[in-house]
Amino acid sequence: MRKIKLLLEYEGTRYHGWQYQPRELSIQEVIEAKLEKITKKKTRLIGSGRTDSGVHAEGQVAHFMTASTMKPREFLKALNSLLPHDIVVKKVEEAKPDFHAQKSATRKTYRYTILNRDYPSALHCRMVHYMMTPLNVGAMRKAARYLVGKKDFKSFQGSGCTARTTVRQIFRLTIAKKDDFITITVDGSGFLKFMVRNIVGTLIEIGWGKWPPEQMQTILKSKNRRIAGPTAPSRGLRLVKVVYGKKSPRKKAKSP
Amino acid sequence: MRKIKLLLEYEGTRYHGWQYQPRELSIQEVIEAKLEKITKKKTRLIGSGRTDSGVHAEGQVAHFMTASTMKPREFLKALNSLLPHDIVVKKVEEAKPDFHAQKSATRKTYRYTILNRDYPSALHCRMVHYMMTPLNVGAMRKAARYLVGKKDFKSFQGSGCTARTTVRQIFRLTIAKKDDFITITVDGSGFLKFMVRNIVGTLIEIGWGKWPPEQMQTILKSKNRRIAGPTAPSRGLRLVKVVYGKKSPRKKAKSP
Repeated sequence: MRKIKLLLEYEGTRYHGWQYQPRELSIQEVIEAKLEKITKKKTRLIGSGRTDSGVHAEGQVAHFMTASTMKPREFLKALNSLLPHDIVVKKVEEAKPDFHAQKSATRKTYRYTILNRDYPSALHCRMVHYMMTPLNVGAMRKAARYLVGKKDFKSFQGSGCTARTTVRQIFRLTIAKKDDFITITVDGSGFLKFMVRNIVGTLIEIGWGKWPPEQMQTILKSKNRRIAGPTAPSRGLRLVKVVYGKKSPRKKAKSP
Repeated sequence: MRKIKLLLEYEGTRYHGWQYQPRELSIQEVIEAKLEKITKKKTRLIGSGRTDSGVHAEGQVAHFMTASTMKPREFLKALNSLLPHDIVVKKVEEAKPDFHAQKSATRKTYRYTILNRDYPSALHCRMVHYMMTPLNVGAMRKAARYLVGKKDFKSFQGSGCTARTTVRQIFRLTIAKKDDFITITVDGSGFLKFMVRNIVGTLIEIGWGKWPPEQMQTILKSKNRRIAGPTAPSRGLRLVKVVYGKKSPRKKAKSP
């Protein structure tokens, strides 16, 4: 049996997230069905982690085991010819036997995009969260600093999350503004359920002035989900990158 | 009666083009229905020109007459709150009585995007034409030079086009490549039905090597649609800008 690694891009709008679910369409299920068609065997696909319903990915990673002798390039072409337009395989590689898409992952980068102006965008509507109320990016950046480091993110944990511990490490959190688009990029060791969207929802409250930036520290210390802001909509979120190998990024990346 | 000018953005995927059609959903019809809802009067919306079924716009311009006393900003908010996500009003202005969205237009810019690499894109699939076969951008640029100027574009005229003359002026035609995206931008006095997509279809044939760049001159001179390349798919095309006022752009814009 060989182990094959996939690099995936998808627009999550039509799907109930990455993970297989009995009565809903998931990305995992769609790709597994195409792998079965190609290899003539039921094939289990393991992702680096779940992405929520409606969340997109530029660089999701997954692996599967197969007895097929097809070359990586042939898998790429066969899968892309069978998959719907909103799921694409960007790269196929032979993986080492000890590689595991979920367990070997050491870092992930997520990006959230907010469109902040007087009118929404028709061309970007599937990929951004639109807000008319002006956001103060400076205040959001100030608040974001409290989140960088190894912390207990219990206040940002979505209900139903089954993680053993709520401690995670955020290596870097940057907020950029270009034209009317605000992008929040979070690079961390791993994330709790809804953690990025709950952080973004809280940053938005600070951005429009409901709370001062220092409130972020109070929220973090409270370890109480009800004190934090609401969960930002899934359409603005994408999984950008999954990193395998070294535990933490370059030194300079540790401060925002 | 006042005359109101709209700047519009839309993703054309779900629509049978700009123009009203008896049994198909058009962009014009959707906006007219919302204007009627807001003003309580049947309102005719005049666009700068038709965009074909599936074609997008970043900067379509339209106007309508109304007895309403609503402010431009109120029209913007009311329309955007009623319109579906894939149609957006970017700007609303009071227009002079002699302004006409179609008749006063002196220039238009269209852009066509081709994604050219080994695998398609899930996040861009609605807005680009994907081609796996490598295209020679240098050859395409060479061919494009024959199209700049005041010429008879009969070879690129779609069937059913009712234009009085097939002479049009292309002020500028540029082909840019960034990462794996090739963008073809055409700036002209006006365009025949399917003209941009037929030009792009012909540039693609030259790009993959079916014809040498000089074939473009032969095609242009033949005034025969059957000699040119096929019509490129609508998903890659967007109307970028409509210009009113001065007839031709700055001098330097005349060569590609």
